[in-house]
Amino acid sequence: MKVHIITVGDEILIGQIIDSNSAYMGRLLNLNGARVERIISIGDRHEEIVHTLAQSVAQADVVLMTGGLGPTKDDITKKALADYFGVEMVFSEETYRRILKIVEQLGRPATEAHRHQCYMPANAALLYNKMGTAPGMWMQAESGAVVVSMPGVPYEMEYLMEHEVVPRLRAHFPGKPIGHRTLRTAGEGESRIAERLDAFEETLPEGMKLAYLPNPGQVRLRLSFSADTQQELDAALDAKAAELHALLPDIVYGFGEDELETVLGTLLMERRLRIGTAESCTGGYLAHRITAVPGASRYFNGAIVSYSNEVKMKSLGVSETTLREHGAVSEATVREMVKGALQALPIDVAVAISGIAGPDGGTPDKPVGTIWMAVGNADRIETHLIKGGKHRLRNIQYAGTLALEMTRRFLVGLPGV
Amino acid sequence: MKVHIITVGDEILIGQIIDSNSAYMGRLLNLNGARVERIISIGDRHEEIVHTLAQSVAQADVVLMTGGLGPTKDDITKKALADYFGVEMVFSEETYRRILKIVEQLGRPATEAHRHQCYMPANAALLYNKMGTAPGMWMQAESGAVVVSMPGVPYEMEYLMEHEVVPRLRAHFPGKPIGHRTLRTAGEGESRIAERLDAFEETLPEGMKLAYLPNPGQVRLRLSFSADTQQELDAALDAKAAELHALLPDIVYGFGEDELETVLGTLLMERRLRIGTAESCTGGYLAHRITAVPGASRYFNGAIVSYSNEVKMKSLGVSETTLREHGAVSEATVREMVKGALQALPIDVAVAISGIAGPDGGTPDKPVGTIWMAVGNADRIETHLIKGGKHRLRNIQYAGTLALEMTRRFLVGLPGV
Repeated sequence: MKVHIITVGDEILIGQIIDSNSAYMGRLLNLNGARVERIISIGDRHEEIVHTLAQSVAQADVVLMTGGLGPTKDDITKKALADYFGVEMVFSEETYRRILKIVEQLGRPATEAHRHQCYMPANAALLYNKMGTAPGMWMQAESGAVVVSMPGVPYEMEYLMEHEVVPRLRAHFPGKPIGHRTLRTAGEGESRIAERLDAFEETLPEGMKLAYLPNPGQVRLRLSFSADTQQELDAALDAKAAELHALLPDIVYGFGEDELETVLGTLLMERRLRIGTAESCTGGYLAHRITAVPGASRYFNGAIVSYSNEVKMKSLGVSETTLREHGAVSEATVREMVKGALQALPIDVAVAISGIAGPDGGTPDKPVGTIWMAVGNADRIETHLIKGGKHRLRNIQYAGTLALEMTRRFLVGLPGV
Repeated sequence: MKVHIITVGDEILIGQIIDSNSAYMGRLLNLNGARVERIISIGDRHEEIVHTLAQSVAQADVVLMTGGLGPTKDDITKKALADYFGVEMVFSEETYRRILKIVEQLGRPATEAHRHQCYMPANAALLYNKMGTAPGMWMQAESGAVVVSMPGVPYEMEYLMEHEVVPRLRAHFPGKPIGHRTLRTAGEGESRIAERLDAFEETLPEGMKLAYLPNPGQVRLRLSFSADTQQELDAALDAKAAELHALLPDIVYGFGEDELETVLGTLLMERRLRIGTAESCTGGYLAHRITAVPGASRYFNGAIVSYSNEVKMKSLGVSETTLREHGAVSEATVREMVKGALQALPIDVAVAISGIAGPDGGTPDKPVGTIWMAVGNADRIETHLIKGGKHRLRNIQYAGTLALEMTRRFLVGLPGV
């Protein structure tokens, strides 16, 4: 299955936004055995869209478009699609009803722009978009090529790709089964993991691939394979995934779509423990990560973001002496922050972070990126020192991820990060 | 000056990396009066590169390519360029001397791959690359179109663009300047803004465009124009941007690259006010947004994330009666959270949020997406009710953005969101 992706929007051409939609689509399609051959970004111009569409339909089995479907006046994509296919624009009552319901829930009036948004090319099958007002559109060219148009808002496009477009494409273009197994690790770098897997990689059967997908603090390991039958495929992948897991028992926290914060949440629920955080340089980011999981209220009690020393003393009971003698970024301080949070919130397990996120504020002793973390309960406290880089947001995210992994290991009785 | 950008690399098509190079080039070219008409990403295949190059040379004045020039990469881009232009590959002594010098400094031996890297299309003028071993290449087609090839490593490409490519292009194609003005708004939806600007859009001069760029809770409005002189361009854009601002004085929080949290931070610093948050459903996200700004410690004191009622009472002094009679998600509760945070942290301005982020936990009275917010100081408290959707993370982000905007309006004395 050959795919072209066309992203529409002047804002991409002038570099005001980075086209991350194409990367998402490329990744998802690749996992499903389709080959993206070309990604084309063009501006919001009618003749450009029609011309590009004609070229891609001639060369590809599937053409996926994003952008230009919003409720304002720059939605020329739909008109260009109708003109390319030589069909009328027709009013979709169903879409209008859905929009009315959505704006009603938001307590706002429906506008003329909303009505305008409901005109669709007559040949389009509409794809239900749970995340927004503009539906996706599925059209078929005379050649048999499929053309799909989606909104450019990332989470709307992602919803449509996953729930509507990919399942339909798989049904439309059946092929040899392709499969994947993903193991998720945290707390160890890509090159160190590659070293540990050196011998393992030699044992992979012909055609099976191992990919390293790194994020700050995490590396996903993905095995990919294709076989004649689903059974053969699953057997080969399951065997190698089990071997891989056995080689990395300390750092593998989950599989597939498991998120570190979800795995941690499940552990806390199983053990009926309540958690909370005491954060300085991460400024609430760790609490945000924990509470991004649905149902987090069953184990997350609260957090104290003690950005100033005043709050560290007042709300967490960190002693003035400790702050004066060791500084706010020190092992002694994060230990006291854990003790303070256990009392103040009150909770069974507390995580504390204090560091210099940057880009300024470093000293020769404690350069930017110096971050102390601690996790503890009434019985014991473990600490860890991170030496991060100069990039503020990356330091915050990295510290958040390592703190989650450190807490997971603390709970299951593994050595720290 | 019409420009096509061609990025070469399988890793882009399978979504392993996001093509941020094109956005950088688009931004820089746009600032220099060039119009990027098309960005094309293709794989590392010879015939695909030759074919795409031929198409783009026929349509554009300038074709910029990145990727496929590194020492480890298959250097099929260079070979494809030579074949497209019908020239030989010749050995560049100068490039080899530079590479020898670089690897010597790194204390490594020169390899066969390094020698191989020095073969260039015979018609290429080499562009000095201070940041790496592979030089840029400047070639000219019979049509007069310029073809430039650069390495895909971002900092190498950026160096070449800024120091070699753009200055040469400006000399080669003196032309009409292009410009933009971006106004940033928050707290009002795209279609409502479109309504307010209906008459304004009719007054735009021929060729001037207004684009809506929405994010949850925010919409950027971008005016684009081209004129004969820079002066004429600036005058026309400034006049229309001022009109636009005057039409939306309540919702415009900034211009260009201003971020809402940075604008708020500047306001707080100017007024020497300390801020803090009391968060329930946003779980620390608002504090994270505020502290993502470098230097936030000058105005952000801390936060109390009171996820459980226990913490609401214990750390923020919300009364049991209020929680029992009105519930945790209520105007009365967020008012008491503001008062509690002003005391507990202590701070001059407090923001409180309590709601049902979802996907579960709603009731007929208070469905998922019901979120109460309050902002206040010692003198007054303002409140606002959001009716969000069903998507947890989107609700959290939306509430965070609206809370920042509500706080901005509170500080400058505008009516709430």
